[in-house]
Amino acid sequence: MVDPRAAVTVVAKGLPASPGAAQGEAVFDADEAEALAKQGRKVILVRPETSPEDFHGIVAAQAVLTARGGMTSHAAIVARGMGKTCVVGATEIEVDAAGGRFRANGRVVKRGQVLTVDGTTGRVILGTAKLVEPTVGGHYGKLMAWADARRRLRVRANADTPADARRAREFGAEGIGLCRTEHMFFEGDRITAMREMIVAPDETERRRALAKLLPMQRGDFEGIFEAMAGYPVTIRLLDPPLHEFLPHTRGEIAPLAKAMKLPAAALERIVDGLTEVNPMLGHRGCRLGITYPEITEMQARAIFEAACRVVARGKQVVAEVMIPLVAHVEELRRQAEIVRRVAQDVFLAEGRAVPYLVGTMIELPRAALTADEIAKEADFFSFGTNDLTQTTFGLSRDDAGRFLPFYVEHGILKDDPFQVLDQEGVGRLMELAVRLGRGSRNELKIGICGEHGGEPESVKFCHRVGMNYVSCSPFRVPIARLAAAQAALEEQGVINRTRATV
Amino acid sequence: MVDPRAAVTVVAKGLPASPGAAQGEAVFDADEAEALAKQGRKVILVRPETSPEDFHGIVAAQAVLTARGGMTSHAAIVARGMGKTCVVGATEIEVDAAGGRFRANGRVVKRGQVLTVDGTTGRVILGTAKLVEPTVGGHYGKLMAWADARRRLRVRANADTPADARRAREFGAEGIGLCRTEHMFFEGDRITAMREMIVAPDETERRRALAKLLPMQRGDFEGIFEAMAGYPVTIRLLDPPLHEFLPHTRGEIAPLAKAMKLPAAALERIVDGLTEVNPMLGHRGCRLGITYPEITEMQARAIFEAACRVVARGKQVVAEVMIPLVAHVEELRRQAEIVRRVAQDVFLAEGRAVPYLVGTMIELPRAALTADEIAKEADFFSFGTNDLTQTTFGLSRDDAGRFLPFYVEHGILKDDPFQVLDQEGVGRLMELAVRLGRGSRNELKIGICGEHGGEPESVKFCHRVGMNYVSCSPFRVPIARLAAAQAALEEQGVINRTRATV
Repeated sequence: MVDPRAAVTVVAKGLPASPGAAQGEAVFDADEAEALAKQGRKVILVRPETSPEDFHGIVAAQAVLTARGGMTSHAAIVARGMGKTCVVGATEIEVDAAGGRFRANGRVVKRGQVLTVDGTTGRVILGTAKLVEPTVGGHYGKLMAWADARRRLRVRANADTPADARRAREFGAEGIGLCRTEHMFFEGDRITAMREMIVAPDETERRRALAKLLPMQRGDFEGIFEAMAGYPVTIRLLDPPLHEFLPHTRGEIAPLAKAMKLPAAALERIVDGLTEVNPMLGHRGCRLGITYPEITEMQARAIFEAACRVVARGKQVVAEVMIPLVAHVEELRRQAEIVRRVAQDVFLAEGRAVPYLVGTMIELPRAALTADEIAKEADFFSFGTNDLTQTTFGLSRDDAGRFLPFYVEHGILKDDPFQVLDQEGVGRLMELAVRLGRGSRNELKIGICGEHGGEPESVKFCHRVGMNYVSCSPFRVPIARLAAAQAALEEQGVINRTRATV
Repeated sequence: MVDPRAAVTVVAKGLPASPGAAQGEAVFDADEAEALAKQGRKVILVRPETSPEDFHGIVAAQAVLTARGGMTSHAAIVARGMGKTCVVGATEIEVDAAGGRFRANGRVVKRGQVLTVDGTTGRVILGTAKLVEPTVGGHYGKLMAWADARRRLRVRANADTPADARRAREFGAEGIGLCRTEHMFFEGDRITAMREMIVAPDETERRRALAKLLPMQRGDFEGIFEAMAGYPVTIRLLDPPLHEFLPHTRGEIAPLAKAMKLPAAALERIVDGLTEVNPMLGHRGCRLGITYPEITEMQARAIFEAACRVVARGKQVVAEVMIPLVAHVEELRRQAEIVRRVAQDVFLAEGRAVPYLVGTMIELPRAALTADEIAKEADFFSFGTNDLTQTTFGLSRDDAGRFLPFYVEHGILKDDPFQVLDQEGVGRLMELAVRLGRGSRNELKIGICGEHGGEPESVKFCHRVGMNYVSCSPFRVPIARLAAAQAALEEQGVINRTRATV
């Protein structure tokens, strides 16, 4: 952390998206961040906003700073998931990435200048501010044991890799509530196979590319199941729109076309054809699995083959397959059919069966409103409160930076609904979904895997409406455990119900 | 209409977005469509999709054909509003606008080739198919009189200009349920003043540009109030995001910058800064009026000054000011305060008062869920079912063409929810909003102004949940009147409740 007594020059302020402090040279490009980091230099990645294409730059950087985006923007979520310092939505800075500099409040900061990013307060500081080690009291373990003894809610973590899964266990997570499979498609030669799948002219070619992805996915799932042995792992099938896996500018398309042995114009046409006006509301989630069922088949096969292999090594596996972005029960019914059919195929081939559930995200208002119907096909619900907040408010988290800070500052909204669950609006929809869902299926397992799963007030709300678990970033698991205990104590009248202050 | 007995060569099929048949040369650019039409030539505007920048091309063309978009895409809504033939979402065609041609099913159609567009069936036909006049039976007037005597629902029309308002009256509309003020900002020198407002560096400059827009808006409102004398006119304040009023490519930005006496780089920065990832969920609707209250002030002033002038000429005016995209009651409260303050100012200055209401669109799930709170500040609700369907389903109408036709074809959804109201999901939310709203304010006036207001099954739903009126395109007013009568007769048990077949 930045020494609270240090005199510092603040060039801008943004949202404290991921705590801690970090220092390094400003760089404006993910590739450059990676190249400099390989030389052992410390860098701060500065971007207008980030996308999955910047992922390697975020990994390489000491901290991430973005001009746009809210507490649940791509940069914020990815950095928080890694425990990396991050400040987003620093709207005072105007990033000229091509020119390698940014302006803020009359100052210009160029590539190579050293910055200190304070993710605890949101400050962007010129030069190297004095840092001090934060201290954790020795009573942590005891407090957590007390909390665990009192809470009713289970606490899981969101983790996409075996390394994340191991870290989640260290923080006390009792399972994985959200494993995002798409993050597995960005690294190394996986993105190549993924892109082959996307540009495939027909199902045969698509299946050929998917066959290359299968062993990679299976390997990841094996690692995750191993790390979480005995604890449930909820795996969400492919969610983002396919264009997120392709480059968008001519300069990037040409070399890729060459590598793929395609005419540049043909690849440009494919990219153009996939471009969406509102990608958040586009061809993504289970809509992909409905139109390309072979993707769902491949993912289900990878999950069940991995599960069988881990069980064969004598470990327990509890697999939960989660269908994203369901709006209508019929979508879930058809996707669940595919998953169950593949499970039977795999179990027959492997000569063993593994227990599994098939459930769905509740992340669209229509899913919540028709939760009675949807529960007939779902073994579990997991509230995706990031997307549910976006659709319920009609608010894109990537664009909200232009007015949401004004709303909070001027008291139009009490809190940023992406940070603290909007209990009056989104919460009303969630309560309805819990009631309708359990009305159809009494034993329905219900959890939350949005960012709110690690926010104390929101955790307490989840307790009150009767959910079974919350799931959040590994680093927020201790907070969630504590908030869950407070909720239980409040319910019993042991402590007063107040705004949480953990 | 195309002679049903004519032998035709169908090059592609799309969605029948606006009925009728039209013929002309294929053109791929709105400016060219306008230029050729001025020479007296008949043209068909072919675009990947349309945006407000294409408006003049749509006006000039005999028909519009787009490769993308659904029944409520820009092209579909605008064409339907004009009674112009339109086919959208013809996904088989691949438009190369720059090259002046499209491909479809192995054929290439070049600029200047003659097409027949059949908006009743969605067919795109090569050459000039034989057309015949459709005939309207002489019993129309009698049937409509019967319908009007039986229905309880009022039927209004959506109209943005005095000409539209007059046409709406001819079709029997009893008021305007939606007057979209932004359409007034695109023509001639209005777009210039609008752009000055957008690029203004501060409030003073913004107010200077708004002052230029005021008399133009006032003039439009005067014309509309005159045309609808005595009938209510619901005026929606500015709704679309500001970037819709600016060009987006460098080639278009440079000349505009020159005309505005701005460095091209500065204008590019402004355009970049306004760009949104998900414009549907972005800085639009009342979020504009909250962050730039001077826009709301100008629009309210134009409305009330126009109303006073028309009343001074001895005509009655019933003005209903509608705040768009409200998610939280506090947004409505603050915007309504501005409207009421301006009304008092104008009435004092003009020495007369005009009756008016202030209400809100219910077009976001959160507004429906908190309708009890929102009704405390609203004299009326108008369901914006286009946006409400988009947010409830998490479905962008501009992007849905990539999977929604598949969904309907394969029975995942019974109907396209943008054509026929989704009663199970969106409808459940609307019922809740009606119940909560009337619970707070018994006399609350409630209507619908989405595209569904002219679709028979949806009209009957509106009757059943107890709305006061529906509002639709002028051309669909007779259908709505008939469906409203059927709903009343069904309720009384005079006819069986069946799927409407008007």
